[in-house]
Amino acid sequence: MIKILDSKNKKFNKTLDVLLSKRKNKVQLNSVSVIKIIRDVKKNGDKAILKYEKRFNKNSIIAPSIKQINRAIQSLDPKVKKAIDLAYDRIYKFHSLQKFKNISYTDKLKNKLEYKYVPIESVAIYVPGSTASYPSSVLMNAVPAIVAGVKRLVMVNPGQKGKQNPAVLYAAKKCKIKEIYSIGGPSAIAAVAYGTKKIKKVDKIVGPGNSYVAAAKKEVFGDVGIEGMIAGPSEVTIVCDKFSNPEWIASDLIGQAEHDNLAQCILISKDKSIIKKVNDEINNQLKEIPRAAIAKNSLLNNGIIIHMQSDQKIINTVNKIAPEHLELNTKNYKKVVGKIKNAGSICLGKYAVMAMTDYNVGSNHVLPTNSSARYSSGVSVNEFYKRISYINLSKKGIYTLGPSVITLANYEGLAGHAKSVEKRIRRK
Amino acid sequence: MIKILDSKNKKFNKTLDVLLSKRKNKVQLNSVSVIKIIRDVKKNGDKAILKYEKRFNKNSIIAPSIKQINRAIQSLDPKVKKAIDLAYDRIYKFHSLQKFKNISYTDKLKNKLEYKYVPIESVAIYVPGSTASYPSSVLMNAVPAIVAGVKRLVMVNPGQKGKQNPAVLYAAKKCKIKEIYSIGGPSAIAAVAYGTKKIKKVDKIVGPGNSYVAAAKKEVFGDVGIEGMIAGPSEVTIVCDKFSNPEWIASDLIGQAEHDNLAQCILISKDKSIIKKVNDEINNQLKEIPRAAIAKNSLLNNGIIIHMQSDQKIINTVNKIAPEHLELNTKNYKKVVGKIKNAGSICLGKYAVMAMTDYNVGSNHVLPTNSSARYSSGVSVNEFYKRISYINLSKKGIYTLGPSVITLANYEGLAGHAKSVEKRIRRK
Repeated sequence: MIKILDSKNKKFNKTLDVLLSKRKNKVQLNSVSVIKIIRDVKKNGDKAILKYEKRFNKNSIIAPSIKQINRAIQSLDPKVKKAIDLAYDRIYKFHSLQKFKNISYTDKLKNKLEYKYVPIESVAIYVPGSTASYPSSVLMNAVPAIVAGVKRLVMVNPGQKGKQNPAVLYAAKKCKIKEIYSIGGPSAIAAVAYGTKKIKKVDKIVGPGNSYVAAAKKEVFGDVGIEGMIAGPSEVTIVCDKFSNPEWIASDLIGQAEHDNLAQCILISKDKSIIKKVNDEINNQLKEIPRAAIAKNSLLNNGIIIHMQSDQKIINTVNKIAPEHLELNTKNYKKVVGKIKNAGSICLGKYAVMAMTDYNVGSNHVLPTNSSARYSSGVSVNEFYKRISYINLSKKGIYTLGPSVITLANYEGLAGHAKSVEKRIRRK
Repeated sequence: MIKILDSKNKKFNKTLDVLLSKRKNKVQLNSVSVIKIIRDVKKNGDKAILKYEKRFNKNSIIAPSIKQINRAIQSLDPKVKKAIDLAYDRIYKFHSLQKFKNISYTDKLKNKLEYKYVPIESVAIYVPGSTASYPSSVLMNAVPAIVAGVKRLVMVNPGQKGKQNPAVLYAAKKCKIKEIYSIGGPSAIAAVAYGTKKIKKVDKIVGPGNSYVAAAKKEVFGDVGIEGMIAGPSEVTIVCDKFSNPEWIASDLIGQAEHDNLAQCILISKDKSIIKKVNDEINNQLKEIPRAAIAKNSLLNNGIIIHMQSDQKIINTVNKIAPEHLELNTKNYKKVVGKIKNAGSICLGKYAVMAMTDYNVGSNHVLPTNSSARYSSGVSVNEFYKRISYINLSKKGIYTLGPSVITLANYEGLAGHAKSVEKRIRRK
């Protein structure tokens, strides 16, 4: 069912490039209609928001009441609550380790330089919700913000007719999010970016969404912060060998493919027999899941199986693909992993499966897609800090370093810069 | 000459908002013409680049020869070379302190989680150059990249008729940049973002530029990385008291104002007499610099002097302005600085002047403008790393955590995710 390529083939690199860019072009953002919506919300505020809510979500409220929230949470299965609690604890623990140390440095001239991590004041988390509900997305975005010390956390999550998912609300409560809005789409992004009467604007917006939400985030970027990447349809690349369990590998590929018609599943192996076994298994297992149609569609259109001849070729190809998730399901993963430069998150060994990392292992599941792992990273505490430099110069400092600054400033044609230093040196 | 506001005035907050947003609107990006240029370069490559180079820079080459580079460098004043060397050393030292430690953590279930900082493979640095030449910009962008370990560093810097500035070339040589292109504007951004026959594409583009370059960077973002902010016209906010030297403060404001007609200079003080003295000094000192017309224009249009009644009001106002540069030129700066949350870089005390930090103090001068200090930071080593999570689960790990993942995955409607975990637990 899945396209099979062989790297021995002369045209392999070109064929792979064409396949990868074909998908990339499909996930282009729609920005024209999005710009109109953003302008409307900027101009007409809450009125515009309610207009779009009625049109797209059959919803007529902007924010649920505390009563509504609590009633929804009470309806939630305690088993799900416990699972959310466990995930929260483990995500909290691993992200706490990522906290930064401030730097303070005094040089020989007694100039003091500091470099501090200051939490962003206010952040909105966009949690998608119309066709599915993702409590895990709440945790993956909110927990790092809590660890960093963000004071004002806002959740934007569209409901069905205003009713939001109980587990999403429970996760938000767990994260002590007090501002919850039951709105969605580009208008919700505009609301938190520019503010309305009911919604105070924030400093940064994070969280996944469909292509309209992603386009809206790109559009408002500059007026408000967003992640250093555009999160798109999910991806996994799995490298396996003759020791891998084909049943497991097939289920990993299907687990990824069920996300979205545009999900990307790639399997790479040096072993032809495991490739055949996995391929057969996929056909068997597709029958087992409710979202089989999506998974099949995704595998047919964007799935690729690659037979390769060497680890070096595998490394190069993975670095070119720059997958969101990488599973190195091989015996020799230690030999390979150090050379992988481009991947959002890397699962090592036979038990580490993408689905585990999506929930409660502790690492983050908001990861760079569409090759953006070349230059960006998953959400982490880093996303919620600003880094500020503090400079305190001594008299000796400016007398020693100043003349050199005067030279450079004058060279750059900035005499005013030079003067501001000169005046401090030639004191009256 | 500069507008003076008093925070006692009831309309103060509104007036300040209007002034700030008036300037903000002036620095909007021009994107329509930029999109056309980008499409052209994507389609026609080097041919399109040369077309725009001829039109805008009277230039007919894409890259200078090594001979040309060395000849230019030989012509450079040794005093300027020395000043660049000193700045390089100090920037290198302070940025080295910012390096991150990788994290490795094994939990009680013997699951091993790692979190590593991996340098971005290839980065292009845009150095503006048509009306002025900034060797300091080369250092501020390239040195953190070198510290992070970026392998392929590319410099894009437009010249006049192909001839680039000797100091820019010297700084590039100092940073061991081997790929130098003498092109500029949106077409140059497109070239490094998408690649041409002569220019291999990069993973990330950093560095300042005019509004066309900034618009181009925003446009290509997603296909390539950019900084987490759009760098626009420069800004300083200075807080001073009765102990401040009015001559120095005036020179600091002028030093900032000479950058650009859209530069923003704001002075805040509780002391009315220093406000008057600084204002008088500005008029005197404007005569002293060649770029007086620009400085005057900038101060007239975007300069604001604010008389305030309390430190708390000053703190709130600075946090609202979120200036690129902040100078706390007051005796009591220690009481105030901890409450400043939004600023790119903060100078403390009487000797710390913005111009010093622009060159050789060691901190970075590529800083967030236009209020983006609310959510973003100056360039640092952080800009040149990706952060990757590595997950290795034990058998006990997946057996213990797996059931909870199965619960959440099924709740989220992702049965395929649940199955990939189940299969590893219920082993055949």
